[in-house]
Amino acid sequence: MKKEFDVIFARNEFKAQAFLDELRGKKPLFVLAIATTDTGKIPGISAAGKMPEFTDYTPPADAELLHLGRCKCIKGVPVTPDGIPTPALIAMSALHLADIPVLVCSGGLRIKPQIPFLDVGGNPGRDIRTGSSVDNVQEVIDRAVIAGENLAKASDYLVIGESIPGGTTTALGVLSAMGIHAAGKVSSSMPENPHDLKSEAVRVGLTAAGETFGSLLNNPIRAVSCVGDPMMPAFAGLVMGAAAEIPVLMAGGTQMTAVLAIVNDLKPEVLCNVAIGTTRWVVEDDSSDICGIVEEIADVPVLAADLNFAGSRFNGLKAYEKGIVKEGVGAGGASIAAMAATEGAVTKEMLLTDIERNYAKLMGLK
Amino acid sequence: MKKEFDVIFARNEFKAQAFLDELRGKKPLFVLAIATTDTGKIPGISAAGKMPEFTDYTPPADAELLHLGRCKCIKGVPVTPDGIPTPALIAMSALHLADIPVLVCSGGLRIKPQIPFLDVGGNPGRDIRTGSSVDNVQEVIDRAVIAGENLAKASDYLVIGESIPGGTTTALGVLSAMGIHAAGKVSSSMPENPHDLKSEAVRVGLTAAGETFGSLLNNPIRAVSCVGDPMMPAFAGLVMGAAAEIPVLMAGGTQMTAVLAIVNDLKPEVLCNVAIGTTRWVVEDDSSDICGIVEEIADVPVLAADLNFAGSRFNGLKAYEKGIVKEGVGAGGASIAAMAATEGAVTKEMLLTDIERNYAKLMGLK
Repeated sequence: MKKEFDVIFARNEFKAQAFLDELRGKKPLFVLAIATTDTGKIPGISAAGKMPEFTDYTPPADAELLHLGRCKCIKGVPVTPDGIPTPALIAMSALHLADIPVLVCSGGLRIKPQIPFLDVGGNPGRDIRTGSSVDNVQEVIDRAVIAGENLAKASDYLVIGESIPGGTTTALGVLSAMGIHAAGKVSSSMPENPHDLKSEAVRVGLTAAGETFGSLLNNPIRAVSCVGDPMMPAFAGLVMGAAAEIPVLMAGGTQMTAVLAIVNDLKPEVLCNVAIGTTRWVVEDDSSDICGIVEEIADVPVLAADLNFAGSRFNGLKAYEKGIVKEGVGAGGASIAAMAATEGAVTKEMLLTDIERNYAKLMGLK
Repeated sequence: MKKEFDVIFARNEFKAQAFLDELRGKKPLFVLAIATTDTGKIPGISAAGKMPEFTDYTPPADAELLHLGRCKCIKGVPVTPDGIPTPALIAMSALHLADIPVLVCSGGLRIKPQIPFLDVGGNPGRDIRTGSSVDNVQEVIDRAVIAGENLAKASDYLVIGESIPGGTTTALGVLSAMGIHAAGKVSSSMPENPHDLKSEAVRVGLTAAGETFGSLLNNPIRAVSCVGDPMMPAFAGLVMGAAAEIPVLMAGGTQMTAVLAIVNDLKPEVLCNVAIGTTRWVVEDDSSDICGIVEEIADVPVLAADLNFAGSRFNGLKAYEKGIVKEGVGAGGASIAAMAATEGAVTKEMLLTDIERNYAKLMGLK
C-alpha cells in the first residue's frame, strides 16, 4: 500500500493522499468524545477494565491523561487484564510532540474527569440488551453540531477520537440495526475477539427494542437510542457540524464505521471532508475488517499510522504487536495528525521513544 | 480620547492602541463564562431578572441566545424590570457579523443551558452574606487554566465575556477583601446604582467569614471563596491559561476589575497580554469608575466600543443611553473584536441595525 510520512493509505489511495495533503502543515484541534455505557460491563465484552465497574473510570482517566500527562480519577493508567496500557499513551505523546490542542467532549459519563470538558447534554448509556441504551440522541447531536460548527471556525481541521468501553459491541448494534453486515468484522481489545458474545448482545437488544437486522436502515437516531452508546451522538454531531466547513479525521477503529453510518444517513454531503484515521494494528487485524465495513457505507478513505512497537523495551508496549489492544483514544488519528502537522518531523520512531518515556514515568519503570 | 474604528481608548492610550493593533484582522474565539449565585437574589441588588429565581435563568438564556439566536430555557429574551433587553443581543450581533466562534464555559449553574458548554467543575454560588460563597475555587481555576492553554493554541486571541446576575456586588466583595477601594465605584444595571446595598452585603459577608477590608490582600482564592462568585475562578483561569500565549480581551464592565485583581496576584506576568474591553456606557458612567479601580490594580489598558443607541427606533434599546443596562455578556469586547477582526468593516451603525433587526424578531415587534 502507498505511504507518506509514516502513514499507510489503507483504503482509496487517491482520496487518502488528497486528504493527507490537505492536512500538511495545518493546525488541527483534537477532540476526544468520551462516554460510559453499561454495555461495556457485559462479562467478556471489553478489556477496558479489569472489573466491570472499572469501565466507568477508563474514559475519564484517558481524558485526564491527555490533558495532565497523568490520571487523577485512578492510580496509574488504564490497563487491560493482560497489563497492556491504554492507547491514550500513544495519543498523548503524538499530541504533545506536535503541540496539538485538546478538547474533551462528554456524551454522558458516570464518573466525571477532573479536567475541563464539553457537556452536550447526554447521559451514561444502558446495556444494549435492554433495547433502550441511549437518551436524548437527537438533542445531543444538535448540541454537538453547534460545538462542531464553532470549533471549525477556530481550527484548520478536527481530529476526533473516542474512549468508551464496549464500543465495538454498540457499533455492531447500530450497524446491524441499519442493515450493514458487520458481524465478525468489528475489532476488539481482547486477545480473542468475542464475536459471538457481541452478536448475541446485539440480537437480544434488537429483539427487546422490537427491531430486526436492517429495520432501522434510515433511522440512525433510533438505532443509537436502542442499541448504540452515548459517545456516538456526540461524535456524529461534532463531525456533522465541523465537516461542513473543514476536514475531519475520524480517529478510531471499527467503531468509526457506526459513526460513519450515522453521518452518512443524516448529512451525507459532508463526507467529502471526512476520512477515517486508525492504526496499522487495526487495518492489519485478521479478526476484524474496517475497510470491509466502510465499503458497505460510503466511499471515504482510510488512513493508518504505521506504528510499530516490536522494538520496544517494554512488554506492555510490545503487546500491541500481538494485535490485542489496537486502537482507542484516537491514537492512530492523533499520530497521523502529529506527522502531518509537523510535515513528517514527527516519525514513528520518535513516537515510540516518547511513548516509552511516558510509559516508564507513569508506571514507575526504568 | 483617542479612537480607532469605533473603539475608544479609555485608559492608557499607548497600550490600548498597541493592543488593538495586535487584534487587527486576526481570528478571535469568544468565550462566555457563565454562572449563577444567590447573591444576585438579594432584593434590590440586580436587575438581571424580574423575580429573584429568574436570575438562575439569565446566564443560560444569554448563552443560548449567542449560539441559537434565541433562548430555549425561557420565552423571549432576558429583560430588566424596565423592559431593557439583555446585552447578549449586542454580543450576538457583533459575533455573528464578524463570524466569530463562541464557546460557553460554566463556572457553576443551577439551570443548564441547552447548548454545548465547558464544565470546569464548579458549583452555583451562595449568597456572599454567608461568608462562604464559592466552592472549589482553586480546582476550578486549575481546570480553566487547562482550557485556556488549549484554546490559546487554536485561536489568535481570546475575548472572554461573562453573564452572572449580582456580579458587581461579588466584584466589590473580592476587591474589598483584597484591599482595593471600589466602594461606590462598581457599576450597576439598575436605574439607581444601589451602592449602599452592595457595600452592606459585602460588609456582612466579610464579617461572617472572619475577614475585613484588605485582610485577603494576597489571597484571592480565599477572597473568592468567601465573598466572590463562581464566574470568577472560571474566568480568571481562562485568562491565566490563554494570556501566557496570546492576547486576551477581558470583555465586561467593573466586574472585570475583580478578575484582574485575581490574575494580578496569581500570575501577574501574563498581564502584558491583557486588556479590558467594555462599552462607552460603562466608561462614561457617572455612578461607577472602572478606570479608577483598574488604576489601583495594574497598568492594563481599557478599550470601549463606541456604541450609540440614541437613534434607535426602539425604546428598549434607546434606554441604553440612559445608563441603566450598560454592559454584560461581553457586549463591548465582542463589538471591539468584530470591528478589529473585520478591520473596521463592522461599524457601530451596522451593529445597531443588526441589533434592531434581531431585537424586533425576538420580541415580535415591527
